[in-house]
Amino acid sequence: MVTRTVDLRSDTVTKPTEAMRAAMASAEVDDDVLMHDPTAFRLETEMAKVMGKEAGLFVPSGTMGNLISVLVHCEIRGSEVIIGDNSHIHIYENGGISTIGGVHPRTVKNNQDGTMDIDLIEAAIRDPKGEIVYPTTRLICLENTHANCGGRCLSVEYTDSVGEIAKKHGLKLHIDGARIFNAAVALGVPVRRLVQAADSASVCLSKGLGAPVGSVIVGSKEFIKKARRLRKTLGGGMRQVGVLCAAALVALQENVLVMLDGDHKKAKLLAEGLNQLKGLRVDVDAVETNIVRAVALSQSHVSNTTSCFNPTPFTKPLNYIDFDALVYFEITEDSKLDAACLLKKLEEHGVLVMPESSTSLDV
Amino acid sequence: MVTRTVDLRSDTVTKPTEAMRAAMASAEVDDDVLMHDPTAFRLETEMAKVMGKEAGLFVPSGTMGNLISVLVHCEIRGSEVIIGDNSHIHIYENGGISTIGGVHPRTVKNNQDGTMDIDLIEAAIRDPKGEIVYPTTRLICLENTHANCGGRCLSVEYTDSVGEIAKKHGLKLHIDGARIFNAAVALGVPVRRLVQAADSASVCLSKGLGAPVGSVIVGSKEFIKKARRLRKTLGGGMRQVGVLCAAALVALQENVLVMLDGDHKKAKLLAEGLNQLKGLRVDVDAVETNIVRAVALSQSHVSNTTSCFNPTPFTKPLNYIDFDALVYFEITEDSKLDAACLLKKLEEHGVLVMPESSTSLDV
Amino acid sequence: MVTRTVDLRSDTVTKPTEAMRAAMASAEVDDDVLMHDPTAFRLETEMAKVMGKEAGLFVPSGTMGNLISVLVHCEIRGSEVIIGDNSHIHIYENGGISTIGGVHPRTVKNNQDGTMDIDLIEAAIRDPKGEIVYPTTRLICLENTHANCGGRCLSVEYTDSVGEIAKKHGLKLHIDGARIFNAAVALGVPVRRLVQAADSASVCLSKGLGAPVGSVIVGSKEFIKKARRLRKTLGGGMRQVGVLCAAALVALQENVLVMLDGDHKKAKLLAEGLNQLKGLRVDVDAVETNIVRAVALSQSHVSNTTSCFNPTPFTKPLNYIDFDALVYFEITEDSKLDAACLLKKLEEHGVLVMPESSTSLDV
Amino acid sequence: MVTRTVDLRSDTVTKPTEAMRAAMASAEVDDDVLMHDPTAFRLETEMAKVMGKEAGLFVPSGTMGNLISVLVHCEIRGSEVIIGDNSHIHIYENGGISTIGGVHPRTVKNNQDGTMDIDLIEAAIRDPKGEIVYPTTRLICLENTHANCGGRCLSVEYTDSVGEIAKKHGLKLHIDGARIFNAAVALGVPVRRLVQAADSASVCLSKGLGAPVGSVIVGSKEFIKKARRLRKTLGGGMRQVGVLCAAALVALQENVLVMLDGDHKKAKLLAEGLNQLKGLRVDVDAVETNIVRAVALSQSHVSNTTSCFNPTPFTKPLNYIDFDALVYFEITEDSKLDAACLLKKLEEHGVLVMPESSTSLDV
Repeated sequence: MVTRTVDLRSDTVTKPTEAMRAAMASAEVDDDVLMHDPTAFRLETEMAKVMGKEAGLFVPSGTMGNLISVLVHCEIRGSEVIIGDNSHIHIYENGGISTIGGVHPRTVKNNQDGTMDIDLIEAAIRDPKGEIVYPTTRLICLENTHANCGGRCLSVEYTDSVGEIAKKHGLKLHIDGARIFNAAVALGVPVRRLVQAADSASVCLSKGLGAPVGSVIVGSKEFIKKARRLRKTLGGGMRQVGVLCAAALVALQENVLVMLDGDHKKAKLLAEGLNQLKGLRVDVDAVETNIVRAVALSQSHVSNTTSCFNPTPFTKPLNYIDFDALVYFEITEDSKLDAACLLKKLEEHGVLVMPESSTSLDV
Repeated sequence: MVTRTVDLRSDTVTKPTEAMRAAMASAEVDDDVLMHDPTAFRLETEMAKVMGKEAGLFVPSGTMGNLISVLVHCEIRGSEVIIGDNSHIHIYENGGISTIGGVHPRTVKNNQDGTMDIDLIEAAIRDPKGEIVYPTTRLICLENTHANCGGRCLSVEYTDSVGEIAKKHGLKLHIDGARIFNAAVALGVPVRRLVQAADSASVCLSKGLGAPVGSVIVGSKEFIKKARRLRKTLGGGMRQVGVLCAAALVALQENVLVMLDGDHKKAKLLAEGLNQLKGLRVDVDAVETNIVRAVALSQSHVSNTTSCFNPTPFTKPLNYIDFDALVYFEITEDSKLDAACLLKKLEEHGVLVMPESSTSLDV
Repeated sequence: MVTRTVDLRSDTVTKPTEAMRAAMASAEVDDDVLMHDPTAFRLETEMAKVMGKEAGLFVPSGTMGNLISVLVHCEIRGSEVIIGDNSHIHIYENGGISTIGGVHPRTVKNNQDGTMDIDLIEAAIRDPKGEIVYPTTRLICLENTHANCGGRCLSVEYTDSVGEIAKKHGLKLHIDGARIFNAAVALGVPVRRLVQAADSASVCLSKGLGAPVGSVIVGSKEFIKKARRLRKTLGGGMRQVGVLCAAALVALQENVLVMLDGDHKKAKLLAEGLNQLKGLRVDVDAVETNIVRAVALSQSHVSNTTSCFNPTPFTKPLNYIDFDALVYFEITEDSKLDAACLLKKLEEHGVLVMPESSTSLDV
Repeated sequence: MVTRTVDLRSDTVTKPTEAMRAAMASAEVDDDVLMHDPTAFRLETEMAKVMGKEAGLFVPSGTMGNLISVLVHCEIRGSEVIIGDNSHIHIYENGGISTIGGVHPRTVKNNQDGTMDIDLIEAAIRDPKGEIVYPTTRLICLENTHANCGGRCLSVEYTDSVGEIAKKHGLKLHIDGARIFNAAVALGVPVRRLVQAADSASVCLSKGLGAPVGSVIVGSKEFIKKARRLRKTLGGGMRQVGVLCAAALVALQENVLVMLDGDHKKAKLLAEGLNQLKGLRVDVDAVETNIVRAVALSQSHVSNTTSCFNPTPFTKPLNYIDFDALVYFEITEDSKLDAACLLKKLEEHGVLVMPESSTSLDV
């Protein structure tokens, strides 16, 4: 009998806490399209302060936060953005910067730790002398933590170096900081320090922070002014949006850092547990935040496993509810594991994960 | 001393009721991007049923609802939409269908009652034989009630006629139904009948219906499938969005029709009151729903008015809070009224209206 | 027996003269993408001089000339252009400014003489204070002569007035001058005077000027620099394009003004001839340049015509080859004329016109 | 004293032959926008036949040929194209497929021989099950010969394999065949065989074929119909374009294969000569067609060179005019060669090459 359920489908599935629900119910609101909603204003101001930027803007999703940021920095037709080939913007956001925004992406290889080599970034910048055949490089995007690289953190030093390159070439730097608080906690630095070199950053409220909906983008006043207008164009301007912002303020005011630190420790424990199982391998050292990648070993590496994975051993460390994490199981064709069977077994033990096709959608 | 305030800045400024707040606080939610949020599902299903369509989709705003609808119907590059020259999509949505969606608008003159002449619509359809120089007409858009035409209602007969033209030429018909419930109440017909000829419609939850945030678009399952994807591209996919949908469900389940009928009656009273004032003129017969247009007469028409308008006489019929209406004051250059003075006087009497520049933004 | 043929399908069908062919054969050329083609350079310089602008750029067509011009002036996402509702750009260029360039058109009614009322233009300019819901007006476009208005000319005074409005509001002014030389001749003013108030203009080489291919756009050096780049993006950069420019230079150096004046006189004669025919009506006074519009009268206005029109009377004044003109026959449904029959009769008399569906494509 | 000049700036700088000039002068022409130009029709028909496709379309440039092809295959908003990270479309065409066409590029690493690994291509295809966050893969692009990979040829077998992958996943295959005739000659196969698996291909007339201007795209009748319309939208529809097509027909009818074979042999000779020079290194085996890449060795590899390169030894094999080739000199920062000095010396010997910044633009 399952008495507790651990939901590891994604760190986006977290449900709002009682405090958040109460805050929503009593939120002071007004029409935010007219810029009169006091709670939205409070959240935006607060987040801007935390992130060390002039201004902030609430948006319905991280995807819109990134889309607006890229499009504001690339407001002139013919712009190009330098972006990781394994980044969320490039892989999981429908190609919207091109299909909606007409911005041309130039990808640079993401290393396993989420970085792109500095010299490769610089080499990807278009020489303005070649403008007759080149688009104009206007923006570099980083992602911290880097989801597809297993939640690895970009350091202050690395981020600053990319910022210097950007400045040197007159480019802007945007950081997709959907999980930037996870990075701050894991690195032990203030979150504002991690985006100091950036012209803009997006922060997700509905991942580690646990709010029901939304992201905030931060930057200069001029940037936010343009962002607000573009948000309206895209249809992201909402009326009494303070109800959502109230929940986010609770998340911000609760001890986020402690909470996220707990998530990371549990993810580490989980990684270690999984790694001890026959037929699975996890690079435990690479688990820096709340993302765990387990590889199902192929036949040749496994001597003696049952045809279906038994998750019992690793459910032990997970007996708590609000563990905001993602767990990927990479099940290769020749591994003895069967995805559907694995899911079923896990669910019997109160552990919810996502089937392959959905998992890839959920970062 | 002001004891009650009447907020006539817009019908979008309405604050959520206690019942809505309670619903938000207790809403059953899950990740709606993964299509697991039960409350969003319930709202979408309910609205689809009310509108007589196969499926529905919650979106953050009416602007996004219209943008998605136009873009889904015009998914092929080179599309043109026929649209009223005074329509909300053309005037108040940042030109997003072109600047974001690359759709070419072909405007047809809106008559004072919000209609476009049927023969002008048909004449605006591009002859496919001319495709070497023409874009391809793919969509006709109507707006009901028509905001910029003073909240006038399009009849069932008119809508059906446009639907026939669309069908005859292989075009789609979208209805911007931000205030379609107002039209249904005013005309005394079921709302579904008003969109029967349409392939899609958007309905605003945060105007007359009084929910804090959002719109729903309805159409065929195929349409909604494409709309859901495009919503994600635009960044309108939200996580535990059930908190917003719960409030909207309350609005739908409350007796909307009675409520709106009350709004319309009060708007009519207001119009009559304003019309009796010296220096103002209102076409009372044109007030069919919750929008009132008052014209400040020019010097030549006014013999004896004070330099500042005294609103006392018409605040009488307005002594209640939840009157969802828009009131425009058209103050021409040669009229003796002064906008700032008018605003101040009104506010002293507990009547909130918007200054000219904001008003134009708020429809 | 037909001994001479008069080709009135369009003023675009003119074949190159012997002098042009010789010039093409001996043109000095090099790679123009690398900006090394001396003949292209000569044509662009010459046209810039004639038009009184800093620089010029050869483009493959008038459509590309207009597309580039609009897109350069509207290089920032979210731009709107004010444009005649009957203008070539709006009607006959595939909606490319939106579908390719993402520019939102705001149309103003074209009067019968090709003008738009100055106050309507000014009213169409978006108030920057409303930017949260408005696109940004950045450009006004005029067309001179105005094709769909029957080749009517915009005067210097009118053009200057629009230029003043543009300047006052910080907008650019582009003139679609496909037939601007016709206007200059008809008005008896230097062509440069007609575009003095404009920031850019396009001039067609293959209409009245009779060159086989191309247009030239003119403007400031900065404008042309951006235009050159966008021309490459669109694929309009050509290699040894001097072969085409050589033909255009011949056209420019020949006595264009005398030639065009002849065209206009013949068009007037033709109009008068057509007007004397039973069953046709032409507004002779409106024939200012080389476009003639003949309306086939409906049954009720015609007492005694044969079922097929006899063109004999008006072929007299047309016995010459190089008459660069367009003739439209508007054949309404209830007129006794039959388009196919008319075409056949005309062709028997050596007069080529285009059937209805093609005609509309050919302006 | 220089008696003969060898122009190696690019294979695009070739001037038209006397036969081409004569053909231009006597070309039978009419308005091609109206589809009446007989010479354009002849060229398009001829090229379609040679390439083994149903139909062809003349376009002003290879860039427009590729842009149109990608946009026709990706006519639905939200499309993605798989493309080499070093391909001409991705690097040298202004990012137009995104900035003008809104198509999202997904790059796959180009190997040194111009191929992309088949399994990497397949891995880059988006899983339709993930459509809520993915764009839709609709097209794969190859380039043959591959310019940035030194003019290497893609084999029939490789092309067919990619075609099979495309077919298996319901995708289209486009081949940028700017130098496809070079590939056919070098591989000794009919050119049509090299594009058999493709849904469309572009062929440049002004590179190896030596015509002054233009490219032709080929494909199915349906593809060309859409391409013709899009060509008009982009402004690539030209009037009496037969003058250009006449020159191209001469090129096609002359013994192209023999001519290109000569170019390749001379390029090989040049490569061998350059490779014998101190301070330069050329991978002679990699010179398969008309592109030569010479690397200036860095200080550490060169013991004894003068500070400026002396080109005398290798001008010998180049004493002829019409050698359609590109020569790149990769001059790294620590090499002792000086670009300006090299250029000057070469020019003194009658050898024209392009300075670095231009060279990169000229492929």
